[in-house]
Amino acid sequence: MKRVVNFAPGPAALPLVALEEAQRELLDYQGLGMSIMEMSHRGKDYDAVHNEALSLLRELLGISSDYEVLFLQGGASQQFAVVPMNLLPGGKSADYIVTGTWGEKAVAEANFLGKTRVAATTLQGKKYVRVAAQRELDLDPNAAYVHMTSNNTIFGTQFHTFPETGNVPLIVDMSSDIAWRPIDVSKFGLIYAGAQKNLGPTGITVVIVRKDLVAQGRADIPRIFQYRTHAKENSLYNTIPTFSVYLMRNVLRWLKNRGGLTAVERDNREKAKRLYGVIDANPKLFITDIEKESRSVMNVVFTLPTESIEQKFIAEAKARDLVNLKGHRILGGIRVSLYNAISVEDTQKLVDFMQTFARENA
Amino acid sequence: MKRVVNFAPGPAALPLVALEEAQRELLDYQGLGMSIMEMSHRGKDYDAVHNEALSLLRELLGISSDYEVLFLQGGASQQFAVVPMNLLPGGKSADYIVTGTWGEKAVAEANFLGKTRVAATTLQGKKYVRVAAQRELDLDPNAAYVHMTSNNTIFGTQFHTFPETGNVPLIVDMSSDIAWRPIDVSKFGLIYAGAQKNLGPTGITVVIVRKDLVAQGRADIPRIFQYRTHAKENSLYNTIPTFSVYLMRNVLRWLKNRGGLTAVERDNREKAKRLYGVIDANPKLFITDIEKESRSVMNVVFTLPTESIEQKFIAEAKARDLVNLKGHRILGGIRVSLYNAISVEDTQKLVDFMQTFARENA
Repeated sequence: MKRVVNFAPGPAALPLVALEEAQRELLDYQGLGMSIMEMSHRGKDYDAVHNEALSLLRELLGISSDYEVLFLQGGASQQFAVVPMNLLPGGKSADYIVTGTWGEKAVAEANFLGKTRVAATTLQGKKYVRVAAQRELDLDPNAAYVHMTSNNTIFGTQFHTFPETGNVPLIVDMSSDIAWRPIDVSKFGLIYAGAQKNLGPTGITVVIVRKDLVAQGRADIPRIFQYRTHAKENSLYNTIPTFSVYLMRNVLRWLKNRGGLTAVERDNREKAKRLYGVIDANPKLFITDIEKESRSVMNVVFTLPTESIEQKFIAEAKARDLVNLKGHRILGGIRVSLYNAISVEDTQKLVDFMQTFARENA
Repeated sequence: MKRVVNFAPGPAALPLVALEEAQRELLDYQGLGMSIMEMSHRGKDYDAVHNEALSLLRELLGISSDYEVLFLQGGASQQFAVVPMNLLPGGKSADYIVTGTWGEKAVAEANFLGKTRVAATTLQGKKYVRVAAQRELDLDPNAAYVHMTSNNTIFGTQFHTFPETGNVPLIVDMSSDIAWRPIDVSKFGLIYAGAQKNLGPTGITVVIVRKDLVAQGRADIPRIFQYRTHAKENSLYNTIPTFSVYLMRNVLRWLKNRGGLTAVERDNREKAKRLYGVIDANPKLFITDIEKESRSVMNVVFTLPTESIEQKFIAEAKARDLVNLKGHRILGGIRVSLYNAISVEDTQKLVDFMQTFARENA
């Protein structure tokens, strides 16, 4: 069996131990003679997995009983619509802080459903090279909510502090940086995240939502889209992708065994420090115009001087089993995704290669 | 490794060969050093799997180029809302043929979105013991569409012929009987099905929709819910549950290798014949009031004279590794689900047990 170092932006690398456990019991879960994915989502065996995943998430992120934790389908892209369907009543407006492509898409979907305002955008020309500062936010004190994207996978920027929004609920798409470090959940009205970067495989969207917002949510939309439906049914209103929850459970166990999010944050900061270190040491070769305070710990984006040297970089990295380094099609260049499953040692292999590459291509 | 005969109603048994293939390459797909679920849904390796699954489905079901085949998220329950969101414009009404719980849920969701009519219901007291005949349909010739559920998993009834709806598009929830036999897709406007019964694991909803209906669909709803969005993007508008598609691909390959849907139908009819045979031979022990013409080939539902003898039945079956026979919580009793992955031999094991049980409990 071969395993490479996989810097994919998502769907992304999973911890080997989580996959190995899944492989061992794929045909026969716990001696029951069937796969976890071949049994009822309402039976006690799957239920134990489901509730363990919910509990682990509550424990790791420190989520209080003021919040519901929901496992939904459809990805963050579906939440772009479901958030305003639930929480943007007629007569109200919602504020959007736009710092990248996903924020643009979120506001575009909300515009089908109600009134929105762009409270800030950091678009410069065709690019976003930074996130937004508190001072530049034009917030409506009567907004239904303020929406933002905490980490921009495509542009490689990230909010390192969250804006103050007063009494207006802050709603954050944390798809690409949930659980990269501990957070104070009580500052948020709603957090959502596709699981396929830091938490597990594709198929599950985690929604953490304050109970009073669930209660306030519109009741005149189809039941499948009402948060209260899924809250009431413990995320088992309809058939959930059970295998995705099971794998997420395995990943959450692994996060806990690593020492929880404090240990995870330490490693994530170390990984980013080493990678930005080699970039900053070779600024003519590894080029980035992202403002330093906005640099993402999760997605490190840069270009090389020419497309041919970028191709050489990618090919030589691949020869060392360092793969999936190609940038997003919007930007080109290089993108290194350093989600939780990438270790400090894996990152160091890339850093070593980049140092060698810099010496050879000075 | 232990494997039982798993008559679960869905999520349901998968063909062993499909799971074994997944297990073999779970950590290292095709020598690439990563799992299929750890790579981009836009890369060429996943893309080959995705397109193979789409092609196999087209080939097995004989789907012409007049139709789009979409892989969506959210299950059939989400389609209960998404169908009217797309295809029920203001000023129009939609007809619903209600023959079970899922049909009730479908019309309830549609009622949030527009005007509906119940064109027929076969509810008698608290139960449905048959599907609807053509003569009892009260169809609106100006309806936007006619919606129906082809197989009722809970009540064990199934349409063996489809209604004629003239020029009004027929939309069918085939979640629990898609691909049980060949069908003439050209008779339908739209077919949808959660994959987790006859096609694969949870996580994917297959939508087969006539291209003119896609084009007519409303464009003033969020993009994520417009069929045209997913048609245009080959079902890769957002991150799809890649592992679910991969497993479905494995199941579709297995269906093809069995001889396609003609062979599958022959086996399915044989399974149902044997099981209904032992039921009809012991009518005082295995009790069913479902009308014979409406009996489902997929879900065989019956009761025993008392709850204690039902429990004995379930326990003795389990001792022979014949499991997941308990009826739905609405009805109680016994439900045997005979989806495509259940072989004639597996079914015969249950039939043998039922004959023995009948002798011993006469």
